[in-house]
Amino acid sequence: MKRTELKELGEFGLIDHLTKAFAHKHASTIKGVGDDAAAIRYASEGPLTLVSSDMLVEGIHFDLAYTPLKHLGYKAAVVNFSDIYAMNARPKQLLVNMALSNRFSVEAMEELYAGIQLACDIYGVDLVGGDTTSSLKGLVLSLTIMGEQAADKVVYRRGAKAGDLLCVTGHLGGAYLGLQLLEREKQIFLEQPDMEPDFDGEEELVGRLLKPEARQDIIAFFEEQKLVPTAMIDISDGLSSEALHLCKQSGLGLLLEEVHVPIKEKVYRKALDFNLDPLVCAMHGGEDYELLFCIDPKDADKIKYNMDISIIGEMVPAADGIRLQTKGGKLMDLVAQGWTHH
Amino acid sequence: MKRTELKELGEFGLIDHLTKAFAHKHASTIKGVGDDAAAIRYASEGPLTLVSSDMLVEGIHFDLAYTPLKHLGYKAAVVNFSDIYAMNARPKQLLVNMALSNRFSVEAMEELYAGIQLACDIYGVDLVGGDTTSSLKGLVLSLTIMGEQAADKVVYRRGAKAGDLLCVTGHLGGAYLGLQLLEREKQIFLEQPDMEPDFDGEEELVGRLLKPEARQDIIAFFEEQKLVPTAMIDISDGLSSEALHLCKQSGLGLLLEEVHVPIKEKVYRKALDFNLDPLVCAMHGGEDYELLFCIDPKDADKIKYNMDISIIGEMVPAADGIRLQTKGGKLMDLVAQGWTHH
Repeated sequence: MKRTELKELGEFGLIDHLTKAFAHKHASTIKGVGDDAAAIRYASEGPLTLVSSDMLVEGIHFDLAYTPLKHLGYKAAVVNFSDIYAMNARPKQLLVNMALSNRFSVEAMEELYAGIQLACDIYGVDLVGGDTTSSLKGLVLSLTIMGEQAADKVVYRRGAKAGDLLCVTGHLGGAYLGLQLLEREKQIFLEQPDMEPDFDGEEELVGRLLKPEARQDIIAFFEEQKLVPTAMIDISDGLSSEALHLCKQSGLGLLLEEVHVPIKEKVYRKALDFNLDPLVCAMHGGEDYELLFCIDPKDADKIKYNMDISIIGEMVPAADGIRLQTKGGKLMDLVAQGWTHH
Repeated sequence: MKRTELKELGEFGLIDHLTKAFAHKHASTIKGVGDDAAAIRYASEGPLTLVSSDMLVEGIHFDLAYTPLKHLGYKAAVVNFSDIYAMNARPKQLLVNMALSNRFSVEAMEELYAGIQLACDIYGVDLVGGDTTSSLKGLVLSLTIMGEQAADKVVYRRGAKAGDLLCVTGHLGGAYLGLQLLEREKQIFLEQPDMEPDFDGEEELVGRLLKPEARQDIIAFFEEQKLVPTAMIDISDGLSSEALHLCKQSGLGLLLEEVHVPIKEKVYRKALDFNLDPLVCAMHGGEDYELLFCIDPKDADKIKYNMDISIIGEMVPAADGIRLQTKGGKLMDLVAQGWTHH
């Protein structure tokens, strides 16, 4: 019998492959697999329900050697909420499933839940359910978040038009450098357990990885400005990979300009310290949980004075390709450097 | 620092402990933690949204030595749907999260998804999303199911009154004996790999474990009869444990009559073959996914001619205790023999 390895398809290829044969039976299913969240319309009047689910596995997504359980709980929740903001909606109800081995104590789980509760309080979300079970080894979390938004305000990945401006919030690459710092200190600790970790002046970068925030402020800003992006996605796997998703689902190309990609000076310098290319950190680092979205150029004035939003490119016809224009004026094809199965 | 072991609290104790400090902020959250599903009202008019999430861990919930992946997918989905039927509602949209090691091939995942798809087709459910990721070891599934029902037809665990009749669908103990048969054949296989497994005449019991069905037919029957149970739960952990949940949440006692507990002759005989007490298999076996519900005695006529529903007891005031009356006329306290952390 034929055996195809998972890595031959990769994460997105595998999901596409496994779900392509599933047809929708219900008129209530507005959008299924293939966006940050599914969209469902139960009542003929009233808002859409958005729902999204994430799985986090110890040793793959987090390392408890340098991730306090309270931070893990906070991050797991916030990252899940981010998928609902990426639909231009607000998260409302959370379910937390958890498989854990007897290595964990009740007190450890209290820490994890304290982080989840803090995130729920800050983002205005209710914990409404979940399942707790044993695992043979390690900790696995699976979170499901539900939210709501009026149908005409829900933003999908697929709605961009040629000529739309591509925008990103905040700055990129910080979480990836936070990870490099933590991995470095872990190595030092493993080799010299007596040495105290030294994050002096690096708290911000470490915080970008360990305690990210979701951009609820941007959703509020859109509402205030009566601005509805034409397409949106959150940056979990890196700018490059997410930009490719927007292009693919909208059937478009892109001209991205390196000079406009927002990289903080601190991130830039730290990348060079690690002998890393700052642009590569920003394009492929991932875990920044900023929002990447397209707007109609006629709405450009609405974002002009928001210093936390950068216009980084323009959507173009698919035939023009998906390109990065470097500071030196060269054009390069954008490539994904996303997640692959181990 | 104090260390409390997970097993000191058990599954339900742990969830209660971790979630007790969470308050609901949204009027849309009608029912949170503590029922088969959470209930949410997004539109002021229109149905409630029910949502429930389950986690299944290889080596804890399933053994791939005797569980074909297609069956696993089917069962994982059906068991999840059962939580929505237990609210007297219909499942509509499913999300499937999966963590898997590189031991699994694409073809193996196709089998798993073929089972999920079959369940979706039979029960009329749309697959709308999910997350696929790596694990260091084994397979972990986390499924979330959403459904809907008019608010005045949603049935919780908490609604029973003293004098209500306790009813159960189908028959009990079969899945547990299916498990005994499979475990026996696994032992034989491990000791004598050349020996073919022998399930002659046992297909029904093995099927109860490997390919359970959820009672959508009973929900349709309730609708047809215009019958709304006063409280309901599905039997995943065994009759005894589930009856205790109904009593606790409704603030009642129970008089359960052994003579009325539905045990098929085949189950009865097979239990004796294994030197097991058939009643213990029915009370504590679990995984039967039948529905346990209470009805007002004035509705008794509506179920009288349904041969698939047995009246097995009566809800009584809490002060009268939660008791089993044996065939011999003795009264025994009902005890849970549920899940505990390994």
